[in-house]
Amino acid sequence: MNKNSSNTMALAPNTSNKRETVCIFGTGDFGRALGHKMIQSGYPVVYGSRSTQISNLIPKDAEVLGHAEAAQKAAIIIIAIQRQHYNFLIPLAEVLRGKVLVDISNNLKLNQYPESNAEHLAQLLPGSKVVKAFNTVSAWALQSGTLDASRQVFVCGDDVEAKQMVMNIVRALGLTPLDKGSLLAAQEIENYPLQLFPMWKFPIFLSLGLTAFFFLYCVALDIIYTYIYENNDFSFFIAITIPNRVCPVMALILLALVYLPGIFAAIIQLYRGTKYRRFPDWLDKWMLCRKQLGLIALAFASLHVVFTLVTPMRAFASWRTGKGIISQASFVLNNKTEPLDHTNAWLSDSYLALGILGFFLFVLLGITSLPSVSNNVNWREFRFVQSKLGYLALILCTAHTLVYGGKWFLSPSAYKWYLPNIYMLSLIVPCAVLVVKFVLILPCVDKPLTQIRQGWERNPKYSK
Amino acid sequence: MNKNSSNTMALAPNTSNKRETVCIFGTGDFGRALGHKMIQSGYPVVYGSRSTQISNLIPKDAEVLGHAEAAQKAAIIIIAIQRQHYNFLIPLAEVLRGKVLVDISNNLKLNQYPESNAEHLAQLLPGSKVVKAFNTVSAWALQSGTLDASRQVFVCGDDVEAKQMVMNIVRALGLTPLDKGSLLAAQEIENYPLQLFPMWKFPIFLSLGLTAFFFLYCVALDIIYTYIYENNDFSFFIAITIPNRVCPVMALILLALVYLPGIFAAIIQLYRGTKYRRFPDWLDKWMLCRKQLGLIALAFASLHVVFTLVTPMRAFASWRTGKGIISQASFVLNNKTEPLDHTNAWLSDSYLALGILGFFLFVLLGITSLPSVSNNVNWREFRFVQSKLGYLALILCTAHTLVYGGKWFLSPSAYKWYLPNIYMLSLIVPCAVLVVKFVLILPCVDKPLTQIRQGWERNPKYSK
Amino acid sequence: MNKNSSNTMALAPNTSNKRETVCIFGTGDFGRALGHKMIQSGYPVVYGSRSTQISNLIPKDAEVLGHAEAAQKAAIIIIAIQRQHYNFLIPLAEVLRGKVLVDISNNLKLNQYPESNAEHLAQLLPGSKVVKAFNTVSAWALQSGTLDASRQVFVCGDDVEAKQMVMNIVRALGLTPLDKGSLLAAQEIENYPLQLFPMWKFPIFLSLGLTAFFFLYCVALDIIYTYIYENNDFSFFIAITIPNRVCPVMALILLALVYLPGIFAAIIQLYRGTKYRRFPDWLDKWMLCRKQLGLIALAFASLHVVFTLVTPMRAFASWRTGKGIISQASFVLNNKTEPLDHTNAWLSDSYLALGILGFFLFVLLGITSLPSVSNNVNWREFRFVQSKLGYLALILCTAHTLVYGGKWFLSPSAYKWYLPNIYMLSLIVPCAVLVVKFVLILPCVDKPLTQIRQGWERNPKYSK
Repeated sequence: MNKNSSNTMALAPNTSNKRETVCIFGTGDFGRALGHKMIQSGYPVVYGSRSTQISNLIPKDAEVLGHAEAAQKAAIIIIAIQRQHYNFLIPLAEVLRGKVLVDISNNLKLNQYPESNAEHLAQLLPGSKVVKAFNTVSAWALQSGTLDASRQVFVCGDDVEAKQMVMNIVRALGLTPLDKGSLLAAQEIENYPLQLFPMWKFPIFLSLGLTAFFFLYCVALDIIYTYIYENNDFSFFIAITIPNRVCPVMALILLALVYLPGIFAAIIQLYRGTKYRRFPDWLDKWMLCRKQLGLIALAFASLHVVFTLVTPMRAFASWRTGKGIISQASFVLNNKTEPLDHTNAWLSDSYLALGILGFFLFVLLGITSLPSVSNNVNWREFRFVQSKLGYLALILCTAHTLVYGGKWFLSPSAYKWYLPNIYMLSLIVPCAVLVVKFVLILPCVDKPLTQIRQGWERNPKYSK
Repeated sequence: MNKNSSNTMALAPNTSNKRETVCIFGTGDFGRALGHKMIQSGYPVVYGSRSTQISNLIPKDAEVLGHAEAAQKAAIIIIAIQRQHYNFLIPLAEVLRGKVLVDISNNLKLNQYPESNAEHLAQLLPGSKVVKAFNTVSAWALQSGTLDASRQVFVCGDDVEAKQMVMNIVRALGLTPLDKGSLLAAQEIENYPLQLFPMWKFPIFLSLGLTAFFFLYCVALDIIYTYIYENNDFSFFIAITIPNRVCPVMALILLALVYLPGIFAAIIQLYRGTKYRRFPDWLDKWMLCRKQLGLIALAFASLHVVFTLVTPMRAFASWRTGKGIISQASFVLNNKTEPLDHTNAWLSDSYLALGILGFFLFVLLGITSLPSVSNNVNWREFRFVQSKLGYLALILCTAHTLVYGGKWFLSPSAYKWYLPNIYMLSLIVPCAVLVVKFVLILPCVDKPLTQIRQGWERNPKYSK
Repeated sequence: MNKNSSNTMALAPNTSNKRETVCIFGTGDFGRALGHKMIQSGYPVVYGSRSTQISNLIPKDAEVLGHAEAAQKAAIIIIAIQRQHYNFLIPLAEVLRGKVLVDISNNLKLNQYPESNAEHLAQLLPGSKVVKAFNTVSAWALQSGTLDASRQVFVCGDDVEAKQMVMNIVRALGLTPLDKGSLLAAQEIENYPLQLFPMWKFPIFLSLGLTAFFFLYCVALDIIYTYIYENNDFSFFIAITIPNRVCPVMALILLALVYLPGIFAAIIQLYRGTKYRRFPDWLDKWMLCRKQLGLIALAFASLHVVFTLVTPMRAFASWRTGKGIISQASFVLNNKTEPLDHTNAWLSDSYLALGILGFFLFVLLGITSLPSVSNNVNWREFRFVQSKLGYLALILCTAHTLVYGGKWFLSPSAYKWYLPNIYMLSLIVPCAVLVVKFVLILPCVDKPLTQIRQGWERNPKYSK
C-alpha cells in the first residue's frame, strides 16, 4: 500500500475516469466467470496464473500474467483458488502487502476446518486486508446472466475501507452487497451455500414423524382391524383413502402448531408481568419456524383437497355409488320414494363450505408468505393477514372437521380396539389453541397483556 | 466537470477508515434492535439514556451514557423515543445544534397530530437537521433478521447532506432507502405503517356490497320463492348452491370492471381529441385499483371452481343422481334405451372447457401480478399479458356463462316474480365491455385513438 | 460536529449541499414524468423547450427555458425527444460540449436503424458524453409510483464518470441501475423494451406444434375412426375428452425435455473427457430455456388436473355412469351381486395417488421458480429442488401414466389403423430419460463424470 498509495487514492470509487484494474488469481470456472462479468462492467481484469497461456476460455479482453506481476497491477486481488493451495501465496506475501484480498472460496462440508477459509488466508498473509465475498454466487449464474439463484453477496472483513471497495464492485456487477461485519462472520458466510433449508429441518422432520404415526394408526384401524374382524380386504385404502385421512389431520394440527407458540408467549408474558425477559430457547426457535410449519400445513391441506376431489373417479367410489343407488332402486320398484334427508344435506353442504372457505383463507396466507408479496405490505398489514385471517382459517378448518367428524364422537363403532378415531386426535390441539386464545382476548386478560406489550412491567426490578 | 473536481473528490463514499459513531436516544425495543443491527454492520453505537445502567438487553458492544455526553460523540442521533417525550430534548438544543436527528417515531392513529412527529421535532430544535427514516421497519424484523416485511426505508428531510448520511446507514444495514423529498413528506411516511391495504378498500367494499346484494337476491328467488310456491325446503342451498351462483357472477362482473375504465378512458380521449388533459378523478382512482379488482375477481373465480368441483361429494347431488338414474332404469325395465343426447353433451362439455380455459388464463394473469414476476417482465410484456390475455380471459368467461346460462333467457320459469335470473344480470357489464371494445378496435376508431395516444391533438389549444 | 468536521466531510457522499441541477430536453410524457420524479427526489429541474410557455402539465417547480439556456444550467442533459429530431441538437453542439447527454429513446421496431439511437447521438455530438439509460422505464410507472413493471435501469456509456453520475441519479430515484458496459451495448438495451418474452418463444412454438400434432392424431383415432368403423358420433370429444388426452401427454413430454439436455450434457462430457469445451449451440440454448419448458409443462399438467376433475359434471359421464349402474342393477334383479374388483380398485387408486403426488411436486417446482422464491434460496437448495425433486416428479408422473395406460400396450384395440395410442407415444421420451439417468448414476459412470465436473481432464490437451 505504501508504493502505490497514489493508486489506491484514485481507487476511491468512481472518482477516477477509469475503473480500477482487478486481479484474479486462478482461472477456474468461478475466476473466469467473475472476470467475464467484471470486464462487462468496465473493470480491466488481469489474471494471475502459473501458465500465462492456459486456455481459450479466459475472457479475451483480460490479460494473463504470472501471479506476482498480475498482483502488482491491482489493489484488489480475487483469490479464486481452493483453500488447500493457499500456501503457494506465502512467497508472494511482500507483493500482496497492503492489498485487498477477496476470499471467494467454499468448502465441501459444513465446518470442514476449525477456522474459516478467509481467516486462514488472513493468518497466512497478515499484511493483506482479507475480505470474504462472492462465495454464495454461482459461476453459472454469473456467466449465463440468469439470476434465478440469489443476488445477495455477503461481505465481511476487518478493514472497513477494503470492505467498501469490494462492496462497490459487487454493486457495479448488479448484485446486492450485504455487510455481515468483521471477518469472524466468514465462518457463517462460508456455511451459507452448504446449508440445505436449515429453517425447514425441524418442521419437516416433525411432520414426517407425525405423518408416519398417523399413517400406521390408520392402517391398523382401517385395514388390519377390518381384515381381522370383518374379513374384508381393504388394502387398497393405502393409496388414497388413508392418505386422505392423514393429510387433513396433519394440516389441522400443523396449523394449530403455528398459533400455539404465540399462546405460550402470551401466557409467559402474563405470568412474568414483563416483556423484557427472553423467552425460553425452544419457544424462540418455534416462533422462528412458524412460517415453515404453516406452509407445510398448506401443502397437506392442498393434498387433502385434491385427494378429496378425485373421489368420484375412483373405482371404489363408483362401485359404492352403484350399490347405494341400487338399494334406492329397490325402493322405487316397491313403489316407495326415498326423500331427500334435509339434515344430511345441511351437514354435508356446510362441512364442504366451511372447508372450502378455510382452504381459501389458507391459500391467501400462503400467497402473502411469498417474499415478494410480504415485501410489499407494511407491518400492520402483514400482522393483520397472518394473525387475524390466520385465526379465521384455523376456526373454519376446525369447524369443518367438527361438522364432518362430529358424529363419530358418540358412535361406539368409532372406537376400534378402544382407540379413538384420528378425527378426534386431530381436534385436540386446534381446540385447545382456540379455547385459550378466546380466554386471552377477554378484556380482563387482554388489557394487562396489551400493557405489558407496550412496555409496562409489573415488577420493574425484573428487567434490571 | 473540470470546475468541480474538488467536489467529486469528496464524493467518494466512505473513504474514511472507520465508520462514524451513531448515537441512539432511547433504549426501547426499536432503539435496541437498531443498535444491534448497526453494531453488526460495523458502526460504533452509543446509547443516550436517563440511567446509564439500565438493562442487559442492550447490545453488549454498545456504550451507554447520559444524553448530552452520548450526543457529543456522534454526528447522527437517532431519536428512538415517543413523541410525547420530545420536550425533554429542548434543554439539549445546544448539544444537538448542527447534528443530524433521525426521527423514527410512529403514531397510533392516522393523522393523530396536526403536524408530523418529524416536523414537530424540527420545530422544537430548529438548529438541528431532522431526517425522517426507519419508521416502517419493525424491531422484530431487524432483530430476527427475517425480512418478511418490507425492506424499504422511506427517508425524507430538508437537508440533502443529512439525508445522504442517513441513506448510507440504511444501505449499510442491508435495507433499501427511498428518498421521498423534503420534511413535508414526513406526514405521509408516518401514515404508511398505519395503513391497512388502502388500495384494497374500495374494491373490497364494492365486492362485499355486490356479494350481499346477489346473495339476498338468490335467497329470495331460490329458497323463499320455492318455499312459498312449491312448498320445498331448500334452505341448505345457503351453504353451497347459492355461494356457487354468486361467486361466478361476482368474478365475471369484477373482471369486466377491470376493463371498463380503459374503455371509458378511450372514449374520453376520443371525445376530447387529446391525451393532454387529466381524466376525471373517479376514473383515475378506478384505473389505479384495477389490479385489486382483478385479484378479487380471481378469488371469486377460484371459489367458484372449488364449489363446482365438490358438487359430486354433496348429499344433495348423490340423491339427485340416484333419482335420475332410477328414472333411466325404468326405461331399461320397459326394454327402452335412453340414448346419449348429443346437443346436451356438446353444450355441457363446451361450457366446461370454456370455463377451464378462461380460469386458466385468469390464474396466469394473477401470477403475473405477483410483484416478483411483474418486476421481471418489460413494459411491453406486461401490457401484452394484462391487456391481450386479460381480454381473452374475459371473452372466454363470458362465453362460458352464455353457453351455460343462455337457455335461461327464453325460459319463462327463469323469471320468478318477474325478476331475471342472476345469470342475466351478470352478463350485462361484460357484454357491454366486449361490444364497446370491439367497436374501439375497428380501424376507423382505432386509428384516431392511436394518433391521440401518440401525442396528436385535434384542437391543440386545449393543452395550453 | 465541530470537532470532527474533517471526518464528516469525507463521509458525506454528494457533499455538496444541494443536488446538481438536471436539464431535460423535451416536454413529452416521459420528460414530464422523469422531471416530476426528479423534483420529488430533490433535484432542481430545468426544461429545455421550443416554447417556454407550453403547458400546465409540466411539474410546477421546474423552470422552462430555451434549449441553450437550459443546457447551460446543468451538467447532465436528458434528451427526451425522438431520434428523428436529434438533428436539431447539432447547432447546440458548442453548448453541449463536455456535458453528459442521457439518451432515453426507444424505437418502434427491433433493429429499426443500423446503429442504436445513443450511438447516433454520440456521432452527432462527438464533444458530449452520451449515456444510455431509462429507456426500459415507463412514464406511467414513474408518475403513478406503481412499480409493477421493472425497476431495473440499464445504463451504458463510454465515459465511466458520466455513467456514474447517471447511475447516482437512478439510485436517488429509487431505481436500480445496472451497468451494461460501453455504448456498444446501447443496441441491446434499446431492444429490451421491444422484446416479447424472447426466452419463451422456442418453448411456446414447440409446445404449440406438438399440441396441434397430438390433437389431430386424437381427432383421427377417437372421432373419425369411431365414426367410420363404429358409426358413433363422438364429435363432442373435441371439447374435453381430447384436450384431456393431449394435456397430460404434453406435460409429460415437456417435463422429460427439461431433463433431456442435462443427460446430453453428461454424455458429451463423458465422451470428451473434459468440461472445458463448449457444448454445441443448440444444447446451450436448450439448457437456457429449461425453466420455460418446465413451466409450460406445469400449465399442461394443471389443465389436465382440472379437465379430469370436472369429469363427473359432464353430461356424457352421468350418461355412462347410469348405463354402468343399470347393468349392475340387472345383476341385482337376477339375485346376483357384483363384488368389488380389488385389482381394479388398486390400479385406479394407485394411478390417482401417483398422479396427485407427481402434480404436487410439480407445483412445488413451479413455486420455487418464482423469482422472489428462487432469490431466497442458495445454490445448493435450488439445485436440490430443481434436480432431485424434479426427477422425483418425473418418475411419479411417468409411473402415473404407466399404471393408467399400461393395459393398452397389449390390447389390440389400442392399435387403430395400426397406429399406437398416444399414451404409448408420450412414454417414449420420459422412459428414455429415466433409463439413461439411471445408467448415469451407476457408480462406475458417476465417478468419472464427477471427476470431470470437478475439473479433471482425460486428455488435457483438449482444453488448450
